[in-house]
Amino acid sequence: MAAEEQSASIDPNRPMNILDALCPSRDVLVDLADKWVLLMLASLRESGVQRYSELQRSLGGISRKMLSQTLRTLERDGLVLRTVDVKMAPPLVLYELTELGREIAEETRALCTWTEKRTATVYEARAAYDRR
Amino acid sequence: MAAEEQSASIDPNRPMNILDALCPSRDVLVDLADKWVLLMLASLRESGVQRYSELQRSLGGISRKMLSQTLRTLERDGLVLRTVDVKMAPPLVLYELTELGREIAEETRALCTWTEKRTATVYEARAAYDRR
Repeated sequence: MAAEEQSASIDPNRPMNILDALCPSRDVLVDLADKWVLLMLASLRESGVQRYSELQRSLGGISRKMLSQTLRTLERDGLVLRTVDVKMAPPLVLYELTELGREIAEETRALCTWTEKRTATVYEARAAYDRR
Repeated sequence: MAAEEQSASIDPNRPMNILDALCPSRDVLVDLADKWVLLMLASLRESGVQRYSELQRSLGGISRKMLSQTLRTLERDGLVLRTVDVKMAPPLVLYELTELGREIAEETRALCTWTEKRTATVYEARAAYDRR
């Protein structure tokens, strides 16, 4: 119910402004501004459909609790699709990006690429700051 | 010291992989995957040089504690430059993006734009998920 009220409060004609504390977009940013969410989007973007255990391996260091929580957040936001093939025993559970998920996975690619490319520079800056 | 050792451990010729739990790039991603950091980059990108009080106003809802902490993280990472004009009384403290900061502020622009554009769709997905 709370979610429906929340949803109903959005006026599609009102421009969103992420810098406004009261803008509903803040609530979406909170979900995305998360290390595991960004890594999950990167992994599913690169590898397509994955099982739970494959995702756990591909997101190095993630706990099962955090993996389940991250998947639930992304599924609820409409970014990840979870399908269960009950003809398999045990049932085969697969995760993949939705069309909306593929959009944001594309938009966050540059953030990850930049991070990998500039890590050494950031580490140098940190060392210089800590020497001061 | 810890930071220098950390810095020294980076081999610039070794390719970074953000999905690897032991990759140093993970530690940079942790700083960036933060709501206030993304909003700070957006605000400084749009408005250029800002005072502390201007930043607090522009990042709607941020506490002074969180603002100081976010600025310190970004300054330490070499993304924000803090300058003090001591000829003013009280001294004028200004914050702006460094060249490195402008890079990542550009790379994260798409994430913010997408969030503003797709908030209504994400809210609909949440409502549908919660009804199930």
